[in-house]
Amino acid sequence: MLSKAQIKHITALRSKKYRTEHSQFIVEGKKSIIELLKSDFEHDKLYATKQHSDFINKSTASNVDTISEIELSKISSQKNPEGLLAVVHMPKPRHFTQENKRYIALDKIRDPGNLGTIIRLADWFGIDEILCSTDCVELYNPKVVQASMGSIFHTKTYTVALADLIKNATIPTIAATLGGNPIYQTKALEAGILVIGNEANGISDDVLKRCSQQVTIPNRGKSESLNAAMACGILCSHLFD
Amino acid sequence: MLSKAQIKHITALRSKKYRTEHSQFIVEGKKSIIELLKSDFEHDKLYATKQHSDFINKSTASNVDTISEIELSKISSQKNPEGLLAVVHMPKPRHFTQENKRYIALDKIRDPGNLGTIIRLADWFGIDEILCSTDCVELYNPKVVQASMGSIFHTKTYTVALADLIKNATIPTIAATLGGNPIYQTKALEAGILVIGNEANGISDDVLKRCSQQVTIPNRGKSESLNAAMACGILCSHLFD
Repeated sequence: MLSKAQIKHITALRSKKYRTEHSQFIVEGKKSIIELLKSDFEHDKLYATKQHSDFINKSTASNVDTISEIELSKISSQKNPEGLLAVVHMPKPRHFTQENKRYIALDKIRDPGNLGTIIRLADWFGIDEILCSTDCVELYNPKVVQASMGSIFHTKTYTVALADLIKNATIPTIAATLGGNPIYQTKALEAGILVIGNEANGISDDVLKRCSQQVTIPNRGKSESLNAAMACGILCSHLFD
Repeated sequence: MLSKAQIKHITALRSKKYRTEHSQFIVEGKKSIIELLKSDFEHDKLYATKQHSDFINKSTASNVDTISEIELSKISSQKNPEGLLAVVHMPKPRHFTQENKRYIALDKIRDPGNLGTIIRLADWFGIDEILCSTDCVELYNPKVVQASMGSIFHTKTYTVALADLIKNATIPTIAATLGGNPIYQTKALEAGILVIGNEANGISDDVLKRCSQQVTIPNRGKSESLNAAMACGILCSHLFD
């Protein structure tokens, strides 16, 4: 049975300000919950409908409350909730130390679907550390969490002063631009930072001028642009294959 | 000034059945309207708010009605309509004849965002003919049109009996699967059909068994899957670079 205070708290977590104040965020859906429970992330409470009691019994999840479909519909932000919702503690911010490995850096990515999709594809390519400029969309936005399809729980993310980080990098820093070297002529890298820019404006000047090279996916047709997440996936498959 | 009958007709075009009956569909947003006006597609009517009268005056668009913001909000299906909406005639179905070129074939793609995104990226790679199995999501679904970002007006699409088409193809037919040859070891093709399967179930058996080869984007991490459009983009960049 959900209390009014619980419903108020959970629905308030839809706002970034409230999430930040309470260092908590919402995770919904079976796939994401499975990955959450396998990860180091800690949940405050896991709400499940009776339909999911089997799943919950088989897992070692603690702090589980069984709720009704009607109660779930009050706390879920999804049209067709999947019967599982967790309130999760945000991990403490990490300090970034560059190693000799592969990274994706995001400069002012504003669309939560793009950020989540990039986290998911980075995970596919085995890139488990992502650098976000301070003005990227918030990582724990529900749409980011949903689009990452659980990969957010496999990934270390850092909020960084990107221009300084690129300036001090000791591995190649590759900017995705419209006027760089064709990606098909660029060799795969054992280590490097692939920098993806804002959806509308690309990479900021102060970041771009510090990158060691620029790469482009040549445009063979009439489309004016590729989505930022799509470009990131294509570039990863060539640079980090 | 919009009549009640006009409002009823335009909002009814949100349903597939009504679109099919009337052979018309809706296009919204400046970017898509620009590409529409450059294309061979014919519109029945173009509605523009006063803010866009400059744009309309500079174009050679016919059948333009100026409407108010309030009227637009009645016919638009977008939260923040961009001030331009067109009712467009569907082109007549085309008969497909295979040539010695590059194609993308879609088997049961159900998500309109995926179909629109694939049309947009195909356009980027200069692939201007797309084959859709009979059970793909409808091409003129508003979400498909929106996600294609105008590329739907550069692209020839065909609804085909896919298994038969693949059986009779005289160029390589490459199935995107989870267990094929790593894409990094596959040579780019001058001509071929890249087959992308359903989001949840992949390519149907009767299509798959007729494909000449299978390719895979190797999974280096913990993510269980890549989105179908993302996989299509990555594979295009290797096969059709």
